[in-house]
Amino acid sequence: MRVVITGGAGFLGRLLAQRLLERGELTDARGTPRGIDELVLVDMIAAEGEAWLTDPRVSQVTGDIGVRALLAQALTPATTSIFHLAAVVSGQAEADFDIGMRVNVDATRTLLDLTRQLPAPPKFVFTSSIAVFGGALPQVLPDDQILTPQGSYGAQKAMGELLVSDMSRRGMIDGRSLRLPTITVRPGKPNKAASSFASGIIREPIAGVDAVCPVHPETAMWVQSPPRVIDNLIIGHEAPASALHTTRSISVPGITVAVRDMVSSLARVAGDTVAARVSWHLDPTIDRLVSSWPLAFAADRGRMLGMTADADFDDIVRAYIATQRRT
Amino acid sequence: MRVVITGGAGFLGRLLAQRLLERGELTDARGTPRGIDELVLVDMIAAEGEAWLTDPRVSQVTGDIGVRALLAQALTPATTSIFHLAAVVSGQAEADFDIGMRVNVDATRTLLDLTRQLPAPPKFVFTSSIAVFGGALPQVLPDDQILTPQGSYGAQKAMGELLVSDMSRRGMIDGRSLRLPTITVRPGKPNKAASSFASGIIREPIAGVDAVCPVHPETAMWVQSPPRVIDNLIIGHEAPASALHTTRSISVPGITVAVRDMVSSLARVAGDTVAARVSWHLDPTIDRLVSSWPLAFAADRGRMLGMTADADFDDIVRAYIATQRRT
Repeated sequence: MRVVITGGAGFLGRLLAQRLLERGELTDARGTPRGIDELVLVDMIAAEGEAWLTDPRVSQVTGDIGVRALLAQALTPATTSIFHLAAVVSGQAEADFDIGMRVNVDATRTLLDLTRQLPAPPKFVFTSSIAVFGGALPQVLPDDQILTPQGSYGAQKAMGELLVSDMSRRGMIDGRSLRLPTITVRPGKPNKAASSFASGIIREPIAGVDAVCPVHPETAMWVQSPPRVIDNLIIGHEAPASALHTTRSISVPGITVAVRDMVSSLARVAGDTVAARVSWHLDPTIDRLVSSWPLAFAADRGRMLGMTADADFDDIVRAYIATQRRT
Repeated sequence: MRVVITGGAGFLGRLLAQRLLERGELTDARGTPRGIDELVLVDMIAAEGEAWLTDPRVSQVTGDIGVRALLAQALTPATTSIFHLAAVVSGQAEADFDIGMRVNVDATRTLLDLTRQLPAPPKFVFTSSIAVFGGALPQVLPDDQILTPQGSYGAQKAMGELLVSDMSRRGMIDGRSLRLPTITVRPGKPNKAASSFASGIIREPIAGVDAVCPVHPETAMWVQSPPRVIDNLIIGHEAPASALHTTRSISVPGITVAVRDMVSSLARVAGDTVAARVSWHLDPTIDRLVSSWPLAFAADRGRMLGMTADADFDDIVRAYIATQRRT
């Protein structure tokens, strides 16, 4: 297997790469488990500083994902699996419509176009988002909920889902679009995602730094820990095409947590002094965007494929602290 | 008002142009009724042979709609309304994925991009299709039915709908996407739409020509007559943005008719000898595609805006015969 990960130098990309190297194999589009011989990270900048980067199976292609030649360089004919994680995040796609279209739509399309020219149709895992839903929504979204994005990021991801499903139906690729919950706790620095604070309000206080929460305490989110997201991405890759029916889009199971309860978990797990570092200052734009996202999904199809959610938010905080101790 | 119609030399485009010239006015994006000063037809070839083409308000821009410069030439700053009818039809989009993407997605996007650069956000009427739905569907589709296209034409129209809704939400355009039923009876020659036969089995026998029906007699379709479609396009244009809520997509009301009953209508209205010119020869590809389309819509939002369906199929056949007598 030759596996390509776009956004491979990002947090999720690196986590996925490391897990795939440990795992050592994946199931190809014909349903045969095969060893991973090559793992290619595609990103704007090269990943560095991690021990596994010296693994002989790993290579990197760096540059602008909006440039066809760069993607063509990454997608050599031996490529059998693509994880397309690279994206302009929600806050940035809302602030700059054109850059969102260029990366989230155009680059996705170029990548799909190169993918379909490969000798055998490869597996193509596209990371979509719960932001494809918005507006007046039921408490729990069924798998056949209509897509009504209320932000450009969600609209662009929804267009990607349509393309992945149609090209899969035509046999050009063996695609699957996974709608990921908000991922928390991400390490590192805040990014331009409207959901960035959901990691910040846990990560910063644990590091002894004050954090500002820009949404109402009662605003709730559908969330998942990074290691669980990786589990589910791999399950999504491994699922046979025959289990995916007429749409290739799958809502990944998660848990619903109010932001107030995230901070309570932090207090329980890390202590009141740590949790007291969170202050509240409403940013109406972020609150509007985040509040437009869905609160909970039935995620029946995802569960049927074997995808799982975290036990609770305390668990997510504990797992994050454990990771930090290891590094 | 300066009104641009893409696909303006096509059957529907010409019908719309003629109706707009008679009507003489439209409501602009601010809700003010204004006289139509200019009507621009954009198409691959120029419309010809119709008396109203000599109206001083009419001009034509001809060329490849996939070329940005051509669209830019049509969309001068005075433009206040755009009816985007140009498209690669279902059969052709299924046979040639790339040409469908180029016209149905790329040209639509270029047109939207030029539209948003106009001084005031104009009204933008996008003709979508019932082919955005497919697969296992309820008997009657509610307005919040999930989009599950089972053909590339439907997938491409669904992408267009997402873009129209998102750009309208952002205030870049005042868009509305109308999902038209299958239009019958179209005059002229068969085209590459999978639904082309639905006109052919009425039009050809009336003209004394034999016609072959490529689908099962019990295959039913959601249909509308050309003049009724024009009524509904104009109602869709006139609707105030405030009536359109979080999505700009509207399913247009129609009637459900089995192909067998279309031929019965033909027999009742035009006689048994005429109806006997229809023979049956199944084309599994066409039957599969047409059968995947929805049978009926609640179309509550469309009806609320004042859109209407034809009374019955006999009426549609009679109206067609009357039009033919006039020409």
